[in-house]
Amino acid sequence: MQVRTVGVVGKKRIDLVVRTAEQLVDWLRARQVECLVEEELAVCSGLLVGCPRQELPSRVDLLVVLGGDGTLLSAARLLAGSKVPLLGVNAGGLGFLTEVALEEMFQVLQQVLEGEITITQRSLLDAVVWREGKKVASHSVLNDVVVNKGVLARIIDLETRIDDYYLTTFKADGLIISSPAGSTAYNLSAGGPIVHPALGCIILTPICPHTLTNRPIILPEDRTIRVSLGSVYGEVYLTFDGQVGYRLVDGDLLEVRTSPHRLSLIKSPHRSFYEVLRSKLRWGER
Amino acid sequence: MQVRTVGVVGKKRIDLVVRTAEQLVDWLRARQVECLVEEELAVCSGLLVGCPRQELPSRVDLLVVLGGDGTLLSAARLLAGSKVPLLGVNAGGLGFLTEVALEEMFQVLQQVLEGEITITQRSLLDAVVWREGKKVASHSVLNDVVVNKGVLARIIDLETRIDDYYLTTFKADGLIISSPAGSTAYNLSAGGPIVHPALGCIILTPICPHTLTNRPIILPEDRTIRVSLGSVYGEVYLTFDGQVGYRLVDGDLLEVRTSPHRLSLIKSPHRSFYEVLRSKLRWGER
Amino acid sequence: MQVRTVGVVGKKRIDLVVRTAEQLVDWLRARQVECLVEEELAVCSGLLVGCPRQELPSRVDLLVVLGGDGTLLSAARLLAGSKVPLLGVNAGGLGFLTEVALEEMFQVLQQVLEGEITITQRSLLDAVVWREGKKVASHSVLNDVVVNKGVLARIIDLETRIDDYYLTTFKADGLIISSPAGSTAYNLSAGGPIVHPALGCIILTPICPHTLTNRPIILPEDRTIRVSLGSVYGEVYLTFDGQVGYRLVDGDLLEVRTSPHRLSLIKSPHRSFYEVLRSKLRWGER
Amino acid sequence: MQVRTVGVVGKKRIDLVVRTAEQLVDWLRARQVECLVEEELAVCSGLLVGCPRQELPSRVDLLVVLGGDGTLLSAARLLAGSKVPLLGVNAGGLGFLTEVALEEMFQVLQQVLEGEITITQRSLLDAVVWREGKKVASHSVLNDVVVNKGVLARIIDLETRIDDYYLTTFKADGLIISSPAGSTAYNLSAGGPIVHPALGCIILTPICPHTLTNRPIILPEDRTIRVSLGSVYGEVYLTFDGQVGYRLVDGDLLEVRTSPHRLSLIKSPHRSFYEVLRSKLRWGER
Repeated sequence: MQVRTVGVVGKKRIDLVVRTAEQLVDWLRARQVECLVEEELAVCSGLLVGCPRQELPSRVDLLVVLGGDGTLLSAARLLAGSKVPLLGVNAGGLGFLTEVALEEMFQVLQQVLEGEITITQRSLLDAVVWREGKKVASHSVLNDVVVNKGVLARIIDLETRIDDYYLTTFKADGLIISSPAGSTAYNLSAGGPIVHPALGCIILTPICPHTLTNRPIILPEDRTIRVSLGSVYGEVYLTFDGQVGYRLVDGDLLEVRTSPHRLSLIKSPHRSFYEVLRSKLRWGER
Repeated sequence: MQVRTVGVVGKKRIDLVVRTAEQLVDWLRARQVECLVEEELAVCSGLLVGCPRQELPSRVDLLVVLGGDGTLLSAARLLAGSKVPLLGVNAGGLGFLTEVALEEMFQVLQQVLEGEITITQRSLLDAVVWREGKKVASHSVLNDVVVNKGVLARIIDLETRIDDYYLTTFKADGLIISSPAGSTAYNLSAGGPIVHPALGCIILTPICPHTLTNRPIILPEDRTIRVSLGSVYGEVYLTFDGQVGYRLVDGDLLEVRTSPHRLSLIKSPHRSFYEVLRSKLRWGER
Repeated sequence: MQVRTVGVVGKKRIDLVVRTAEQLVDWLRARQVECLVEEELAVCSGLLVGCPRQELPSRVDLLVVLGGDGTLLSAARLLAGSKVPLLGVNAGGLGFLTEVALEEMFQVLQQVLEGEITITQRSLLDAVVWREGKKVASHSVLNDVVVNKGVLARIIDLETRIDDYYLTTFKADGLIISSPAGSTAYNLSAGGPIVHPALGCIILTPICPHTLTNRPIILPEDRTIRVSLGSVYGEVYLTFDGQVGYRLVDGDLLEVRTSPHRLSLIKSPHRSFYEVLRSKLRWGER
Repeated sequence: MQVRTVGVVGKKRIDLVVRTAEQLVDWLRARQVECLVEEELAVCSGLLVGCPRQELPSRVDLLVVLGGDGTLLSAARLLAGSKVPLLGVNAGGLGFLTEVALEEMFQVLQQVLEGEITITQRSLLDAVVWREGKKVASHSVLNDVVVNKGVLARIIDLETRIDDYYLTTFKADGLIISSPAGSTAYNLSAGGPIVHPALGCIILTPICPHTLTNRPIILPEDRTIRVSLGSVYGEVYLTFDGQVGYRLVDGDLLEVRTSPHRLSLIKSPHRSFYEVLRSKLRWGER
């Protein structure tokens, strides 16, 4: 990978992000690398020229994301379908996905420019909502697709099929359909297991199931999950990576499968997945 | 307990309930017992006279509830503070709380009239919401008081104190504060333990906690639970017995304690709590 | 409580314990308080006179325990039935039960001598094993009574009754019957809830149950638990507080109830139960 | 696959198994298929000639197993390294692994002889114990390799590495290293997730972990798991598929990886994995 142009997106209106973007532009230009900052961030930072966010995937060789996991999830959706690798730099928050700490950013970028860097691929999930035979919503996600009832709604019935086989009808507050990378996100809160992000699979974990017998189930990545929503009394939402919400109605059909596209993530040379589990989630610690 | 007047409430617009109410009136009158049917149900059933729901507690010696657990929870709140015992007759649904099956209703009522019946007491929880020093909501519940974020809201911080001691700050989708009777309701879905309804206690179970270390905690019934809501991004609701919702805002303080009043429930002579666990929840079954 | 004689027991052959015992003797004598050190510890420490362990309960007004939770559990069984309060001083290990840190020992003892100290009562469980109508083993425990199959034994059937009611037949590797104080011990490892030690109750938690539907159950303290062991293929053991083991055979009946005696524990004035949960178990922490 | 010789193994001294074996021999001979019954079973059944168990894998084209899951696990270890497919016929017990019911045996066999049958591959795990640099035990398993402390032993420390990376040190009663097929066996009892048997992975689930933060972890199948046993106080055992036990000592190193060999299992045409989950485990059922 030769890097001639680097895109920069970031959490808006955060001083640290703005200042880091400015330093990044200087640092890259000093190395004859062009730098395109997304418009809204460019405006904040007083940089002269910004680039519309939607154009970045086709114009850059690498996208640097400055922010927390939320910023990275949103950038991942922006890149879905492109091959541009993403470098997540943690500027605030727990930073489970944003691999690289702020203080190691230039060192890692130097390695990237010199072609000495490891890229990992992360699966994405493609989710589609069908209503009366028509596709009414569709998204690619890095972490998860979640069906969730509103607080005042009644418990929902989610008839679930794997390919052409009936699996079960979840009676629950909701259902998490998670990628392996998403296993350490909402899935973990709902009692799901930790899954290594390199394992090709899809995880189904019900949220507050109204039966004693439920347990998360992990499926091979080549299966298609189809979830039919029964009668709805109150509000039921679908959320994509916990960020974009979509209201579902009676009889909607949700279809989730592993995306043919994958996200290329630049790995920190300093951290293994296991070390992140221990240090960020305190997994296994007393 | 001498029973001269029996009140009847029930799930509206359900044929089975309406017909059962009519039979009940006849059966009681044949035994010289007065019967007051709540207005809305009386109207449905074509009975001549109904009694306003709010007047029932002061006018009857026994309240018969025809319906499912939802109907009973709502009747329990109606009776809060009165000493009138409640007989729950299961007319639809799982009927975890409605002790008596429809077909044993007359047999149990006969025993009640003859004074040969066991009454159990159930704890209630009193919940109060304080906002800027003022009491803005207050309710008695049989099962639980639940704080729950809306689907699209961000995770909430619930700083929790027991009497004057700091307990922890739950970072979660919500928190269930449950009576012993409520242990088999929402608490169970969220992973909480089963608690015998005669054990005087209060159960705290977080909903989808964003930490690996959380576990339900059971406290003596004489403790006061105080939960302060941190900054709220999106909608956060309080629900009483899963039926009445109340929207919370930044800085609201929720105070929950065991009520000085208790609910008197007429027990089926045919079922122990353990048998109900096995048959209705399939607890312990393969 | 006036303290004229203090007993001292401790973890054997630990330098720190031996030295602390010596200092304790000096400190108490300087305050005209007699000090009886248990024989085996006295021998190690080169103190002239020791007192047989079994005689301590009838000869002292207070028992100081130097060591970890194991030492305290064993001292608690020694005191069962006596009213002598126990002061646990943590000399090694996690020290969940040993309330007082080594460095605050003299300060707390000073308060005890001045009569300014809080004593808490802890429930004990009395466990009896019946075999062919005869009592073959009996113990009082502070934490728990555990039935556990040997590694190479087959899964066991534990038919369980509460008073005269059938509860369920656990098919599992074992069953933990825990006091409230024991909730944070083995019960927690097996997935049980945290229970406040002042709540009068008994907790049943199966170990690796072979059904999906099991969940811990919490019972009022006045119930009697009876567990019948079905056919046994391999070794099955009963353990008392994880320390004393007793081999069970086909058809043995285990009976557990709350003891009429309670253990008097001297509380550290510096720590609440909730603080111990957070600091020692990291409960609720990220 | 052309089937000329069929081997038969079965649960010893079970009337139903013996009679079924006899019928099977007749049925196969009537179709010009040779049938080799394992010696011990042949003796029981009064059949004239038996074949030593160890010779079966090299002499047959198909192995029929009559019995429960235990019989099948033991036959799977017999076949490890050979390509002979296995047909499990459920003659007693839950029969999670023994796919085919007794009454559909001849129908399925007919399909096998006609070449119209689905064979699935199941991963095996190879486990090796190293002691002072020497290999002291080694086994292939279908379900799981389990480290487990004896009832009276103290909690154990299991330092675990994945390839060359440190994972964590489990402080627990034990550790289950499970194949995907084994996910519905002991792993499920210990709180692990359900994993589709076609997903290439290895599951690590601690048994009664003494930390609140543990959660099962699922790894890609190409990883090597290395578990070092710390100091041992009491007995610690390794078990292979819950059947063969091996005593471990201080400092033993356990190495587990996915086997290069796989087990060929003949699938019932009548049952999907999901249907088995629902009917045999009652997963997802109320």
